[in-house]
Amino acid sequence: MSRELADLADDETDREEDLEDLALGEDYALNPQFVSMVVDAADRGDSERLRELLSALHPADVADLIGFLAADYREVILPHLDPEALAEILSELDYEIREEILESVSPETLAKALGELDSDDAADVVEDLEADKRAQVLAALPETERAAIESALSYGEETAGRLMQREVVAAPQFWTVGQAIDHFRRESDDLPELFFDVYVVDPTYKPVGAVPISTLLRAKRDTPLAQIMESLSEIPVDMDQEEVAYIFDKYHLISAPVVEPGGRLVGQITVDDIVGVIQEESREDILALAGVSDGGRHGDVWDMVRSRLPWLLLNTLTAALAVSVIQAFEAQIAQVVTLAVLMPIVASLGGNGATQTLTVAVRALASRELSAVNALRVVNREMIVGLVNGAVLATVTSLAVYLLFGDVRLCIAFAAALVINMFVASVAGAVVPLALDRMGRDPAVSSAVFVTFVTDFTGFFAFLGIAALILL
Amino acid sequence: MSRELADLADDETDREEDLEDLALGEDYALNPQFVSMVVDAADRGDSERLRELLSALHPADVADLIGFLAADYREVILPHLDPEALAEILSELDYEIREEILESVSPETLAKALGELDSDDAADVVEDLEADKRAQVLAALPETERAAIESALSYGEETAGRLMQREVVAAPQFWTVGQAIDHFRRESDDLPELFFDVYVVDPTYKPVGAVPISTLLRAKRDTPLAQIMESLSEIPVDMDQEEVAYIFDKYHLISAPVVEPGGRLVGQITVDDIVGVIQEESREDILALAGVSDGGRHGDVWDMVRSRLPWLLLNTLTAALAVSVIQAFEAQIAQVVTLAVLMPIVASLGGNGATQTLTVAVRALASRELSAVNALRVVNREMIVGLVNGAVLATVTSLAVYLLFGDVRLCIAFAAALVINMFVASVAGAVVPLALDRMGRDPAVSSAVFVTFVTDFTGFFAFLGIAALILL
Repeated sequence: MSRELADLADDETDREEDLEDLALGEDYALNPQFVSMVVDAADRGDSERLRELLSALHPADVADLIGFLAADYREVILPHLDPEALAEILSELDYEIREEILESVSPETLAKALGELDSDDAADVVEDLEADKRAQVLAALPETERAAIESALSYGEETAGRLMQREVVAAPQFWTVGQAIDHFRRESDDLPELFFDVYVVDPTYKPVGAVPISTLLRAKRDTPLAQIMESLSEIPVDMDQEEVAYIFDKYHLISAPVVEPGGRLVGQITVDDIVGVIQEESREDILALAGVSDGGRHGDVWDMVRSRLPWLLLNTLTAALAVSVIQAFEAQIAQVVTLAVLMPIVASLGGNGATQTLTVAVRALASRELSAVNALRVVNREMIVGLVNGAVLATVTSLAVYLLFGDVRLCIAFAAALVINMFVASVAGAVVPLALDRMGRDPAVSSAVFVTFVTDFTGFFAFLGIAALILL
Repeated sequence: MSRELADLADDETDREEDLEDLALGEDYALNPQFVSMVVDAADRGDSERLRELLSALHPADVADLIGFLAADYREVILPHLDPEALAEILSELDYEIREEILESVSPETLAKALGELDSDDAADVVEDLEADKRAQVLAALPETERAAIESALSYGEETAGRLMQREVVAAPQFWTVGQAIDHFRRESDDLPELFFDVYVVDPTYKPVGAVPISTLLRAKRDTPLAQIMESLSEIPVDMDQEEVAYIFDKYHLISAPVVEPGGRLVGQITVDDIVGVIQEESREDILALAGVSDGGRHGDVWDMVRSRLPWLLLNTLTAALAVSVIQAFEAQIAQVVTLAVLMPIVASLGGNGATQTLTVAVRALASRELSAVNALRVVNREMIVGLVNGAVLATVTSLAVYLLFGDVRLCIAFAAALVINMFVASVAGAVVPLALDRMGRDPAVSSAVFVTFVTDFTGFFAFLGIAALILL
């Protein structure tokens, strides 16, 4: 190669590296400038530039990029993606965008892309396809892959069966370390791309132990696998994914075998899938507590309205119920309008206190720190906390009320109502999620409405009621 | 062995297995009955039974058990724990309980226990010790382990340096697969207990690639490592742990090398540590949104009060500011008391709408789905959603208001205020966390107070103001 050609090749490499550096900011998020470069190239219809920019990105970053772009630009970019990268990008995309993109890709291209993925990720993508297209894509897949995907889809959503990959590395009990390693070298093509444990199975293919491959590497060739294997945490194929994540987190698992009801090994779950589940479950909890049902993150405005309006309507109803208390005291308010000024404070502080207790309880239930074992002690402790917080707030605020309005009886009514409401808030904030959990409902989803209603109602009733008794 | 002895041994094994089965419920949480058995044994002072019960548990479950028990019982149980299990139990315990338990264990026992842990977990425990005890424990440790722990503690809290373990498996570029495997067999004792990647390093100990050990197992013995190594995501030693978790999640990493500023390999982070970080960060966010500062989960009542009272006091202040609007309209309320009945609905629905938007925005910021790239589009979309939700709620509720009170002007004031407040709620819910994030503050911690104040204020002002204009 001449000197100049070599320089040119170097320049090429430099330019690629420059693009990679430019693409991501220091925080590993996409740079706005890079996104503008993509948009510019798309506007100019510069296919070569687009391809160059996209190939500088990791599939996960292409997925992020697609998430940032408006729908029109997504369409422009799609054909410029490397078909092999498409598979990985698809499995990284959020549900809503993936659905939209799947519509515009041909069944043949899709089938080719899916062949690159593990069975769990491929099933995940196929699940989002509409019935017609799903049939076409499955028909275009090789027999074994179709079977793997169809079997994955036969398990319930959010179960271990859906999460697992069928590709596992198993070895009979009587093998030695050397036999296992020789076998892996020989059958290299049939092994999963990445694996962490060799499952030791009995003649009926029931897993009896696991050998981490770092142990395998360290052991002498003539060591029997049965001698170095460790005990297992078996995952039943129908276990809920939240449960699976709990077990992985608790016992620090890297991978775990998934077994059929009879105990036969059918697949494995690895910790990288669990990271996704944990993110998803915590996202669901945090949004549910705020009254946002899932969906609508990347969807259009209508999706967003649908994910939020139902809870707002429900809250309108409970708010109407709560203010009916105020209506009952209209005569008293007409006499002492200051009551109308102070009553929202009592209700609002109760609501805040309840949200605090509620959130702590929901989290503790999710992480199993709160259970039937210590429920009573936790509720007792919350009651004391509610009383203490109420007493402190009542002291501080009633002093302010006295300074502002100079009426001792108003002070007393306000302070007493505040203590009562903070106490009720603490009890309701702990008891409602516990009760919902006991009833088998998700405490994150429905607790807030109940509890807010209780504190609004109590706040208005206690304050106006006491005031009516001692003021008028 | 005689038949009877064998039976006896079988019985022994059966009993142990029975205890294990009894200990955990189907959901892998501790059974209340098992906890009662422990408490009974402790009450009776039956050491043998206690030891038997405790040895049936995985260290993670012992940690859970300790969390469930009252402080007195913890003291009773502690001496009955297997010293080797103690190390693992300590690293599983929650901060507050660990602190309490560390006080009652002798420095020598602690030093012995810490020797069993990886450097990151050991440092984690040492960090919780008081200065005196820390010095004693460190002095009782062997030189190399002391150095490892001291070096870990020299990095900032919640950084990669604190999270990493110093134990890594590295190999020079010119080695072949066979050389590497032979080396691992020979030096077996010096390797980390569990590892997933071999880092290929240059002569200055800079990592240049990684070979997953499943690839190593599959490759022919004469394959050079440089030929099968994959590209790396290097983690700077001072990177924030939230950032590290983001990178692991995004690129589905199992382990990653940690490098010093010069690029030298100093340790590795593995995905099982990241699972803990993700749980911790999402817990922090969810509690911060509810106005609970950390701490006080297992602490006493006083800890709980401390974690909640500050936010309640701050809310009292903002609530007082918001109701000052009501005070300005006292004359109008005295004339039309119904205003006092309806105004909390406007404020409360605004608060709910703002919480929804706020929570979605905080989550999206945390997962980098929301950034400078799409901030404007997201805020625009939120504005439309706020208007649509406001319009729907206004239609439904003003109809109800008309049916109840038969006053068209009251209806109009209520509907207009509701639309205004839902719009303001959406804007504030999106803009406040974005602004806090831009200012380098954690949007989860301080957004809610601001935003609730804005919607309370707007709700009262819009409703009472419009009503004053058109009703009176």
